[in-house]
Amino acid sequence: MAAERPGGRTAAVRDAVLSATADLLIEAGLEGLELTAVAERAGVGKSTVYRRWGTAPALVADLLVDMADQSLPRADTGSLRNDLWANAKLVRRTLNDPRQGNLFKAVIAAATCDQRTAAALQVFYDRRIDEWAGCVTDAVERGEVPAGTDAAAVIRQVSAPLYYQFLTSTRALTVADAHRAVDAAIAAAVAEVFT
Amino acid sequence: MAAERPGGRTAAVRDAVLSATADLLIEAGLEGLELTAVAERAGVGKSTVYRRWGTAPALVADLLVDMADQSLPRADTGSLRNDLWANAKLVRRTLNDPRQGNLFKAVIAAATCDQRTAAALQVFYDRRIDEWAGCVTDAVERGEVPAGTDAAAVIRQVSAPLYYQFLTSTRALTVADAHRAVDAAIAAAVAEVFT
Repeated sequence: MAAERPGGRTAAVRDAVLSATADLLIEAGLEGLELTAVAERAGVGKSTVYRRWGTAPALVADLLVDMADQSLPRADTGSLRNDLWANAKLVRRTLNDPRQGNLFKAVIAAATCDQRTAAALQVFYDRRIDEWAGCVTDAVERGEVPAGTDAAAVIRQVSAPLYYQFLTSTRALTVADAHRAVDAAIAAAVAEVFT
Repeated sequence: MAAERPGGRTAAVRDAVLSATADLLIEAGLEGLELTAVAERAGVGKSTVYRRWGTAPALVADLLVDMADQSLPRADTGSLRNDLWANAKLVRRTLNDPRQGNLFKAVIAAATCDQRTAAALQVFYDRRIDEWAGCVTDAVERGEVPAGTDAAAVIRQVSAPLYYQFLTSTRALTVADAHRAVDAAIAAAVAEVFT
């Protein structure tokens, strides 16, 4: 019985198109991302997809905006370790999830050969890291890490070993891997590596 | 006036084929890696490439073996910080180099959608990390890091933030990034994160 919100139809079209974009990206990569196939899969008119997005990289860029919009708000547990653990758990769960993991692989692969996708990917990560940086600035105020700590650098340091393993090895990310990523980032922050 | 070593001709064919493989991989990715095009670019017979390698992923796997064979031996400066700095400098130089950087991007992208390439990539990194792990085991003996430190984990921790930035951002790797990667890995190792 939900009332249709203004723009509901436009939003529904975008949802369908971005979902189809993700599916095709996972299945065939950026090169296989044909606008006609996206329209067909989404069940929307071809001309809508061409008019509103126009190119495959534009579709991927909008998908990344949507992924950033939908990513969970940062944790705020009152402890840096618990906050970073929530972040590491989220990264691990996302990358280990078959659909999400394949989507991230496809987008990162697309970014290696398309500058517009690379720029959109960086905007995605910058937004996500900004969101979680508050965990570190709060920890600075609580005296858990030194004043002047680069909050974004600490968040990136948690993600880095998880993404490195995800992209260069065939070993699935374990809970121990996620804990170690957090412990290593905190140890480095405490040792003033990020000030 | 160098005497031709035994197998010199076979080795020359392999060099030409792997060099052509790298070129085409950089230009068009795994999907654009046609065996016929590789043979043509390498100036060798098509049947040789088909008989000896057979598939595009087999070519990439052999390219990765060659890259591992050619990667530099580890540093042995007598100090963990200087050894890891040599490693970080090498990673940064490789990833920032236009040809090498694009080759790594192409191989990592190929690994995201081809299991055989992913397995070959992992063998490449495992070999490289094994080579440099000796820097950490020596440091354990010198008492620079705790006994029982996982040497490979420390080496991976140096590479992780450099690769993470390389693959998820458009910012070039700076000398400061490389130093920070080393400092963070050492701080974590000293804090017993890798024991």
